[in-house]
Amino acid sequence: MAARRPRTPQERADHTIDKIGKLAAGAVKQVKAKSNPAIEIPIRALSNVAFNEQSRLIELGDSKQSREFFNVSMAKKYMQTFLVAEKCKDLLTSGKTTSIRDLFYMAKHTIKGAKENTFDDQTESDAVIEDLEVTLDSLREELHLFAAKRGSMVGPMVIVDAGDTINLGRMGSGGWSIPSITEENVIQFKSCEAEYILLVEKEAVWHRLNEDKFWRKNKCVLVTGNGQATRGVRRLMQRMHKELKLPVYVLVDNDPWGLYIYSVIKQGSISLAYESMRMAVPDARFLGLRSRDFKRFKLSDDVRIDLNKEDEKRAKQMLAYPWFEAKQWQEEITDMLKAGFKMEIEALSNKDISFVTDVYIPEKIAKKDWLA
Amino acid sequence: MAARRPRTPQERADHTIDKIGKLAAGAVKQVKAKSNPAIEIPIRALSNVAFNEQSRLIELGDSKQSREFFNVSMAKKYMQTFLVAEKCKDLLTSGKTTSIRDLFYMAKHTIKGAKENTFDDQTESDAVIEDLEVTLDSLREELHLFAAKRGSMVGPMVIVDAGDTINLGRMGSGGWSIPSITEENVIQFKSCEAEYILLVEKEAVWHRLNEDKFWRKNKCVLVTGNGQATRGVRRLMQRMHKELKLPVYVLVDNDPWGLYIYSVIKQGSISLAYESMRMAVPDARFLGLRSRDFKRFKLSDDVRIDLNKEDEKRAKQMLAYPWFEAKQWQEEITDMLKAGFKMEIEALSNKDISFVTDVYIPEKIAKKDWLA
Repeated sequence: MAARRPRTPQERADHTIDKIGKLAAGAVKQVKAKSNPAIEIPIRALSNVAFNEQSRLIELGDSKQSREFFNVSMAKKYMQTFLVAEKCKDLLTSGKTTSIRDLFYMAKHTIKGAKENTFDDQTESDAVIEDLEVTLDSLREELHLFAAKRGSMVGPMVIVDAGDTINLGRMGSGGWSIPSITEENVIQFKSCEAEYILLVEKEAVWHRLNEDKFWRKNKCVLVTGNGQATRGVRRLMQRMHKELKLPVYVLVDNDPWGLYIYSVIKQGSISLAYESMRMAVPDARFLGLRSRDFKRFKLSDDVRIDLNKEDEKRAKQMLAYPWFEAKQWQEEITDMLKAGFKMEIEALSNKDISFVTDVYIPEKIAKKDWLA
Repeated sequence: MAARRPRTPQERADHTIDKIGKLAAGAVKQVKAKSNPAIEIPIRALSNVAFNEQSRLIELGDSKQSREFFNVSMAKKYMQTFLVAEKCKDLLTSGKTTSIRDLFYMAKHTIKGAKENTFDDQTESDAVIEDLEVTLDSLREELHLFAAKRGSMVGPMVIVDAGDTINLGRMGSGGWSIPSITEENVIQFKSCEAEYILLVEKEAVWHRLNEDKFWRKNKCVLVTGNGQATRGVRRLMQRMHKELKLPVYVLVDNDPWGLYIYSVIKQGSISLAYESMRMAVPDARFLGLRSRDFKRFKLSDDVRIDLNKEDEKRAKQMLAYPWFEAKQWQEEITDMLKAGFKMEIEALSNKDISFVTDVYIPEKIAKKDWLA
């Protein structure tokens, strides 16, 4: 279980409030010194993103930009930054959390004596939220904000969610709905008999595995992200991986999108490189369908879907990513391009409805037949 | 609680297997009689759909089409119908359920000695599934098939889901993930202290209400469909409404899409008119944001979003629907068109983050200020 004592929700909130306070105090100091108030904001662009070979994460570099108050092109963004910071402080103080859409409405108003709005569009407040995350080194969840909620989970473990003790081994056919915020102040792990985590891309496959009670027989935590895993799902998996020492297996389709879903879980994404450290699981194992599985499992031609131009383009891009430069990945992606087709996990149902449960996953895990 | 004893899962499955068997026996009989084998399939098109004033449901009419074996344009569909029926029988016999995507893969193969596939595309098998639903008068869930799963639920009630007893009053921040199939063989209601059901369109609003423990204070079941309610959510609400005698309130945005979401919950949709009887809740009450709420709650101009052409077109279509012909709906839709703007529920956060929890919903319910 967690090595260090988790901080209380109040301690965590106070820590973030403190950071916001320091940002504001810095501005006040600059005003008093009659200098041009400015905030140093790490640059969130491809130019400042790199794959760190050692941590095996896509990380943000050290480049920063100065956001100045006395600068016609920056004054509005400067004001917006503090406006969002203030709303986050209110949320933290009141112990409430909200969506980034809601924050937009909370912060939107017409400036007194002017016709100018604080925000015209949510894209503006979303960008400022990301600026604040990197500037304060606080995830949006720590600012009490969240994006979409998606995904379900079952397995032989007991958690505490917002004070409620929940036995994930008794969740029926629906499962526990994974919340947007899965930080340690909301979710704690009480006991766990699982030996690994199985993340499946598709909800329908999750359903199949849950109905077959795969997780009970195979002692695993069964998670679906319904497509690309949300931040809440990724953060939760990383915490289970670190705190409970559970390996993570990722079951995706045999296509470039499946590879992408896996790679974001493994080392983060380019657009949100600053969060990799808190979300990514570099040891995640790829259990997805592979081009060579077509022959290996004697799959029928019926399940082949021709790669389209977009697929080919994406696959070629992936060949060039430093995080896919290892031999096994170059081979895998080249195999897909050579084969000229992709396959969905559901292709296995063409053999038998429970083939994925009874043969595919147990066999691959037993033979350590995964990519990493 | 439910008036009649729920049938066991086996009894329910046997009943559906029996219907499939009769369909097949009919075909065999026609073959033996050397007539042209044919199935009578209710027509699922606008021409055969009407709003029934008495039941207040969008219902399918009596028109049928004959699908014949000895007919070049129908032979393939005839074969497909029995192929899907056979796969459903297999599912029912094995007690397994699966996605409509998976069924496509299960039924897809190249016909021996030909280059013809049984199915080339999932749209073909999806259409045949709908044909079977109307022909057998069995929902797809009764054929052990399901579409997408989406939505969460909490509240002061205890349910049984696939044999697991789940206290929905102790589900933390995430909630219980509503499964795709919510028929009585999967979900049973054990005890309930709720006095009504509150369905909110948006997950973020659901989160706000759950965090504020609105459902505990106000004794309600809190449900979100994350956008348009899935079949699983709608079926579950109808069952709670009927079996537990709970009124249903629907909280949606002030826009044509919000009205549409409400209207599908209330009387079903045109495209799936045959399922209305098992899914719709004609007594559902509209608690959504209304154009007149703008003045009533003294909302700021900041939250107004101009109607676009598509919105105006949809609103005008709705004015013509028989299920919106009552005076209050004509006024409501006309108000929206006159105002020329729409509003999201999150607009209420512009006043205060918990305005929706503390003022909007309790006040509207207390004053019976809803539309129906």
